[in-house]
Amino acid sequence: MLIEELDTPAVVIDLDVMERNIARLSQYAAANHLNLRPHTKTHKIPDIAKLQIAEGATGVTVAKPGEARVMVDDDVRDLMIAYPLVTAAKADHAAQLARECQLRVSLDSPEAIAALGSGTLRHDSRIGILIEIDTGFRRCGVETPEAALLLAREVQRHSHLDFLGLMFYPGHLGKPPEEQPAAIAEVNAILDSFYRAFQIAGIDLPVVSGGSTPTAFRSHLFNGITEIRPGMYLLNDANLVRMGVAGLDDCALHVVVTVASTAVPGRAIVDGGSKTFSSDRSRNEPVSYGMIREDSQAIFVALSEEHGHLDISNSGRKYKVGERLRVLPNHVCTTVNMHDYLYGVRNGEVEKVWEITARGKVQ
Amino acid sequence: MLIEELDTPAVVIDLDVMERNIARLSQYAAANHLNLRPHTKTHKIPDIAKLQIAEGATGVTVAKPGEARVMVDDDVRDLMIAYPLVTAAKADHAAQLARECQLRVSLDSPEAIAALGSGTLRHDSRIGILIEIDTGFRRCGVETPEAALLLAREVQRHSHLDFLGLMFYPGHLGKPPEEQPAAIAEVNAILDSFYRAFQIAGIDLPVVSGGSTPTAFRSHLFNGITEIRPGMYLLNDANLVRMGVAGLDDCALHVVVTVASTAVPGRAIVDGGSKTFSSDRSRNEPVSYGMIREDSQAIFVALSEEHGHLDISNSGRKYKVGERLRVLPNHVCTTVNMHDYLYGVRNGEVEKVWEITARGKVQ
Repeated sequence: MLIEELDTPAVVIDLDVMERNIARLSQYAAANHLNLRPHTKTHKIPDIAKLQIAEGATGVTVAKPGEARVMVDDDVRDLMIAYPLVTAAKADHAAQLARECQLRVSLDSPEAIAALGSGTLRHDSRIGILIEIDTGFRRCGVETPEAALLLAREVQRHSHLDFLGLMFYPGHLGKPPEEQPAAIAEVNAILDSFYRAFQIAGIDLPVVSGGSTPTAFRSHLFNGITEIRPGMYLLNDANLVRMGVAGLDDCALHVVVTVASTAVPGRAIVDGGSKTFSSDRSRNEPVSYGMIREDSQAIFVALSEEHGHLDISNSGRKYKVGERLRVLPNHVCTTVNMHDYLYGVRNGEVEKVWEITARGKVQ
Repeated sequence: MLIEELDTPAVVIDLDVMERNIARLSQYAAANHLNLRPHTKTHKIPDIAKLQIAEGATGVTVAKPGEARVMVDDDVRDLMIAYPLVTAAKADHAAQLARECQLRVSLDSPEAIAALGSGTLRHDSRIGILIEIDTGFRRCGVETPEAALLLAREVQRHSHLDFLGLMFYPGHLGKPPEEQPAAIAEVNAILDSFYRAFQIAGIDLPVVSGGSTPTAFRSHLFNGITEIRPGMYLLNDANLVRMGVAGLDDCALHVVVTVASTAVPGRAIVDGGSKTFSSDRSRNEPVSYGMIREDSQAIFVALSEEHGHLDISNSGRKYKVGERLRVLPNHVCTTVNMHDYLYGVRNGEVEKVWEITARGKVQ
């Protein structure tokens, strides 16, 4: 099938670009002796997780047990759930999964330890535990080495939990490359304070898991980390391009849309809106909802659920009802989550049709 | 099953509130001799469409043929696709559907007429056509009576298309009630200019389809409309509450979430983010992503995909990992679209488990 034969909106991946991105980060991680455990939130497809593993990833990361279940059922068996599981249902689900795969979970509370401790006991399974620490993003993670030590010792009291080390998510380092070294230095000061406390306490840290896409190729600058968990690096998106950490040529995923209306002067309406792109806005001004690859003068100015509103009043391009455009979404992960299928293309041919089987697994 | 037994995040509808909302608008429409054709984008579930029809709706509205297919397959057979279908695939799909149901489509271009004209000819089916006009929202719709007349005459040249009248979407009337009458007067001036032109041309307008939730109970103030297409009125959401057109007691849908982390001072993290609520922001300042029903002092300040970030620094409430909260989402339609199931509850019991079968149908 040719790409032109897909009805729109269609989410399309350039396989050459994706494979190049996967290989490049794998080589970087290997050269820097870092384990690579990509976050599958970006693609939500076991076959792509297996591609990443075949290229050297040691395993993958997910956010919820429902996503882990999809991966395990498709034979991906080294998993980290980078999310504090505090409901009995989720802890039980994770403990069941741990009978079928190598499983690690990050957490930051005694409640999560208790839930996983009793879940693993009930199912007679083992889960590796990473204590999440906050390195400045202010989302999850304990703030002090003392709090982390308390949790580590609490983990060690549970017969079926294995304390493995520390985990952090530097979500606040989504910055232009030139601003990253100073921000990484601040993170390092925090990391070092934790390392010192654990060393004094005599507790080993075999795993320190960090990293995300914006700083992926600077991961060697973080003190003492053993593993990185970037997600978006294999596809990239408009927000990463605007940030300066990816080029347009590094973007593997686009949404093909059709111009549905040009009736209103200064506007072109495409057949994808918030149900196609998610409502994630651009981080930079002017606010926009994606980049139109055929027309840098068009501003993707508003979204209805099924309508993308392009402001073309400053564009010299002539828009025609029925023509197709390629849109680079702001945020690739939330875009993929809206859809049931991804199309992998090479030289204009649809080579792969992937069902996005881990889509929408919020539990 | 009790509501407490649902794992989180769970999207829950209070059936008493929903039924009251459905009945109230049905009674208003009947009293004002307006046909009610609710937009199913809000719930995406055939069973709820049938409830609306049982309470007096003449049919329902959808946005894409894929949604219409789900409705027809579940025996909902009077449909309007309120979207210009300009790709051959979608026009063909609509023409096929028209063999199994009463179907209307709105459009604003000769390209859409040509696509539907040849589709219906190929499938020997009939589709009723409404010309979309722009009454100030500047999304779709022709701007002048002359353009609408040209399209109406073009429709009349196609053997399998039936010209039915005009359609508009007053998306710019999402305003507080006190600002609505003046805005409706402006819309009326535009509507009247179209009515005059069609009268002079001797072309009847048996259908004029308008309306949306913010102005639903003021629909009688629009000149000459025969039908309204509100979607959200049966569930409502935080944006409608902030706008002043719905009360908190009118909101039927909430998302039940669990506090996953309180490790960072001033923050509580709940287990639903942009994959649970969509990224739709509040229309008003401060920007927030939903209202926490248990705590009016908490601000839902940011979203990650699986994390809802609550700023609780100005709250006197004590948050505890593992406790459950009810969140009223900003935008009910985009929230429902993220999920596979809705739970209908009454008196704390889960009475209905609905699969959201028309979710994600972007084509």
